[in-house]
Amino acid sequence: MSDLTTTVSRYLDIWNEADADKRAAAIAELFTADAPYIDPLAAVEGHAGFAAVVAGARDQFKGLGFELHGAVDAHHDQARFQWGLVTEPGAEPIAIGFDVIVTDAEGKIKAVYGFLDKVPAA
Amino acid sequence: MSDLTTTVSRYLDIWNEADADKRAAAIAELFTADAPYIDPLAAVEGHAGFAAVVAGARDQFKGLGFELHGAVDAHHDQARFQWGLVTEPGAEPIAIGFDVIVTDAEGKIKAVYGFLDKVPAA
Repeated sequence: MSDLTTTVSRYLDIWNEADADKRAAAIAELFTADAPYIDPLAAVEGHAGFAAVVAGARDQFKGLGFELHGAVDAHHDQARFQWGLVTEPGAEPIAIGFDVIVTDAEGKIKAVYGFLDKVPAA
Repeated sequence: MSDLTTTVSRYLDIWNEADADKRAAAIAELFTADAPYIDPLAAVEGHAGFAAVVAGARDQFKGLGFELHGAVDAHHDQARFQWGLVTEPGAEPIAIGFDVIVTDAEGKIKAVYGFLDKVPAA
């Protein structure tokens, strides 16, 4: 497992962490202080900004999980991957997103650029 | 055509520009001074670095053209798209790449994160 695959795994763990304090600690450990997180619905910077986005998504999609969809494609300090929003592990995702994450020399995430491939039915 | 679609079009024009001076001028106009360009085969920063990457690719794939493959998906200050390396406009690409570009407040490209979807047969 490459470092970046591990980073993606830890990133998705944050989305799945139910405890807000544990999420905050994991974000502080994994992200640089001013990392931008930008997807079609949110554009924030820094730990508190990203924590709020995750809290909002977890509230909107209560009980659902985020999992890696397909493989992580990584080189240099960047990775691309799809994630799925699922009712249970391995289920057909009700939403699929795509992120590029960029890390710094220490392996911390310094930016997340997100897009959506499949949005939930209204 | 959104600003970012125009930016992607100008970006691909640079790859197709045969004149090195015109390429340099277009790069200076379109990119911030220290913009990273990182794909699986190259990791550079700044105008001269990117110009060298383009010159190298043009030399390696003489006579071929770079064109948008599919649509540009853009929001906020970022866009994702695929490009194809083609023998003539509209031909089946011999290589397909995928880039995320990020722009600054003035619309200049401040980063390109590239990946490869289809590589040329050896």
